[in-house]
Parts: sequence; C-alpha cells; structure tokens
Amino acid sequence: MEKLIQRVQYANSLLCVGLDPVGDDAQVARRLAEVIDQTHDYAAAFKPNLAFFLSREDGVKLLRETVQRIPESIPVILDGKFGDIANTADHYARFAYDIIGADGVTVNPYMGDDAILPFALPGKMVFVLAKTSNKPAHSLQDVALTRGGSLSDCAARVARKLDEEHGGGIGLVVGATNAEAVGRMRALSPEQWFLVPGVGAQGGDLQATLRAGLRPDGSGLLINTSRVLWQAADAGAAARELVEQINQFRPVAV
Amino acid sequence: MEKLIQRVQYANSLLCVGLDPVGDDAQVARRLAEVIDQTHDYAAAFKPNLAFFLSREDGVKLLRETVQRIPESIPVILDGKFGDIANTADHYARFAYDIIGADGVTVNPYMGDDAILPFALPGKMVFVLAKTSNKPAHSLQDVALTRGGSLSDCAARVARKLDEEHGGGIGLVVGATNAEAVGRMRALSPEQWFLVPGVGAQGGDLQATLRAGLRPDGSGLLINTSRVLWQAADAGAAARELVEQINQFRPVAV
Repeated sequence: MEKLIQRVQYANSLLCVGLDPVGDDAQVARRLAEVIDQTHDYAAAFKPNLAFFLSREDGVKLLRETVQRIPESIPVILDGKFGDIANTADHYARFAYDIIGADGVTVNPYMGDDAILPFALPGKMVFVLAKTSNKPAHSLQDVALTRGGSLSDCAARVARKLDEEHGGGIGLVVGATNAEAVGRMRALSPEQWFLVPGVGAQGGDLQATLRAGLRPDGSGLLINTSRVLWQAADAGAAARELVEQINQFRPVAV
Repeated sequence: MEKLIQRVQYANSLLCVGLDPVGDDAQVARRLAEVIDQTHDYAAAFKPNLAFFLSREDGVKLLRETVQRIPESIPVILDGKFGDIANTADHYARFAYDIIGADGVTVNPYMGDDAILPFALPGKMVFVLAKTSNKPAHSLQDVALTRGGSLSDCAARVARKLDEEHGGGIGLVVGATNAEAVGRMRALSPEQWFLVPGVGAQGGDLQATLRAGLRPDGSGLLINTSRVLWQAADAGAAARELVEQINQFRPVAV
C-alpha cells in the first residue's frame, strides 16, 4: 500500500475517482480524458470499472489508454471483482497489472484464499469484497454463521488473515450504504484499507461512513465516487468539494 | 436451456470442451482452431475461460474469433465468473452476449440476486458458482450456517429460487473433486443443470461424480474438460473416448 499511502499524504485526500464510462464512443474517450485531467489533483486513487470498458468495441484499448493518462504517482485500482482460482487468477493478474498497468484490483472471496493471493504481488493492492453496497447482497453476505457473525465477517477475517500472513497489501471493499456495517468491518479489521463505494448516487451517508470507518489516524478509507463526477459540469470543482467535505470529518490531517 | 438440451440429445453427449489456451500467440490461435474442429462432433458445449484470453494482447479479438469458429448449434458458455451488480452486470452481459456471442456465462453469487439476474436473458444460460473444485474454497463455501447447511447450500438455494421465479435458465457450477458434495447439490437442486469442472487434471472421479450428480433421466450434468483435450495428440479421439466413458454410466440414453 506504499504508493497509496504516499499519494494520500501528498494530495491530502481520501477520494477515489471511479471511472464507469457511459455514452457513445467519441464522447466517452473525450469525457474520460476530461475527468482525469480535471480531478487528478484531488484524487488519492482512480478506479476504472472493467465492465464499462469490456462492453464497448476496443474496450481493452480504451482502458489501457485511460490508465496511461493517469499520472504515474496516483494508484489505479482495476475494479474487476475477479473471482477465479490459482492458475486462472494468475492470468487475470497478468491482465490487470501487465496489460492494463493497474496498481491494484478488487477480488471476490467466494472461491477462497487461492482466488485472492495470486493478485497480492509485490507493490500491488488487493481489495476483497466483504460487505457490498447493494441490498440483494444480504441473501449471502448477511447469512448467520454457527461460529458467530455473518458471511461478510468471515470474508473480512479471511482477508485480514491473508494480509497479516502476507505482510500487507490486502484491504476490503465495504459499501457505504450501511454505516453500522462499516463500523463492524472496522472493528474486525482495525488496520486494513477499505475501498468504499456507495456514497452519493447509491445513497450512502458520507459523515456516518467516515465516523464509522476512519482509523484513529484519520485515514484507512478510500471513498469512491463515480457518477457524481462523471456528470458534473466541472468535475474538478466537484472533486475538490468532495475532498473538503471528507477532510472536514477527518480527526487528524495525515 | 433449450439450445443445450437439443444439443445434448443430438450429440448424445454431456461433454463440455473447456478452452483455456496456453502457449505463444501463433501456436494458440492454431491450437484453438484444431481443438474446436476435432472435438465439436462430441461436444455438448464449449467453455472458453475469459482469463486465458484477457491475459494476451488482442485477447478479446481472439475470443470472438474462437466463438465464431464454434458451430452455431453448440452452446458456448463464457467462463467469466462475473460478480458485479445491476447496472455493472448489464455491461458484462453485453460483453458476453453481444460482443463475444456467448450463449451463457458463469457468475459468482457473493453479491446476491442482482449479480445473477441481469445475465438471465431470454435464451441465455447462467451457471452460478455453488461448490467449486479448489480446496481453499472451504474457508467460505463450507462455513456452517445457523439455519443449517453450508454457504454452498445457501448459494444453491438462491440459484434454485431464482431459476423457479425466472422460469428456467439458471444452473450451478459444482466441482467434481468431491462426489459427496455433488450429491448434496443434486438433492438441493433436483432439476437444474450443473456445469462440472474438476474431472481429469484436478483429480475428480468421473464415475462417482456421474453417480452422484446425474438426474434420473441420465442428464443434467455438463462434464467439463480442458487441459486433457488441449494437450492430447488427437483431441477428437480423446473427446470421443470421454463421451463414451460418460455415456457408459448414464442409466438412460437421452
């Protein structure tokens, strides 16, 4: 997480700029460039969502060019929610890191340790889905376990164990739509970084999320916003405003 | 599942030919063409694995050409283990069906119903990961639930409910490495189709898997093999032999 920590300190920002491009091909390339150029001063990280690129002709090329446009000092998390094992996961890691040039990925824990560890390469970040922001996720993630807690707790424990065994680099994805769940995840994982979608368009409450999820050092959360910035008349101003809102609630400047 | 059922009957086969291409670019294109041409008479379905294509330059183009080479009457399942929600899942569905031309996909249930249903479009098949063939999967899938059973049971129940509500088209992925688990999944989902990896290279026992997983009509399983066919001197002969081995244990010819 070195690159991320340096960037968070340098930019004094916990904002992750999500890139979920929609629109026709000519518009999209131009808008991606605009959003990156206008927001990068305020971004702790960028998070392109793989699905929104694959659904276009030449989407992999566009994704690569998008990542190349992002300044080298800012980490890029490829949101692919990869979820396959061992040998197959190695191929996804090669795609994300070597072909696309990402610094990190999101992964799905359903297939266990060997769906996570192949992505935890030196200098790379892995965010494991624990508690996601969509309501229907409750049918699996909230299921109660005989040993206590829910499945999302179990995913968080697996991720923490792997992070400790691996010497860092493994964080969680924790949706902002339920601040209580954010607090619970923080209690289970006091040190790990959380990538937090769901503020803004999905209705998550920023202040409650920060209160529940920030570490005592005022850090440890990456607050992702995609649509709000994509649709803003001035994406730079919107990003700056978000960073200010977030920093207002950070107990200590990092 | 109409296209699959017709194909299974026509070819008298439950063999799914997995395409996990390895090797340098020139070799791979040639070998993919060979494997498809030599095995298609024996194939109930083909299953290209997305990771093995994305990890190459121009992998999406190769995947598309691969799918185009497969005869129209044989269903193609894109093994992407997609696991994202709603709007994002729609983009993956567009990729799999419109850009690649697949007839079905594999999906990950961790994010719940809205990570599954966007793929269940008319005429398309969705195979939901329930019990996978890798050992480390136990850390999540075998976790015991207070309501009884394990997480993989819960995933199977979710998939069955969605299949019933949706009028069909939703099956399961059930690994062959544990025949007892195959039987358990069959008890929970008496009617659904199972896509079954793990026979062969991963050590699953074919006979025990068929005994535990076949429906009384001698059908309902797609037995996937990838490496054995890819590495065979004569992929056609190897596929024919597998089909004969499988059919030996089917109580009734379909």
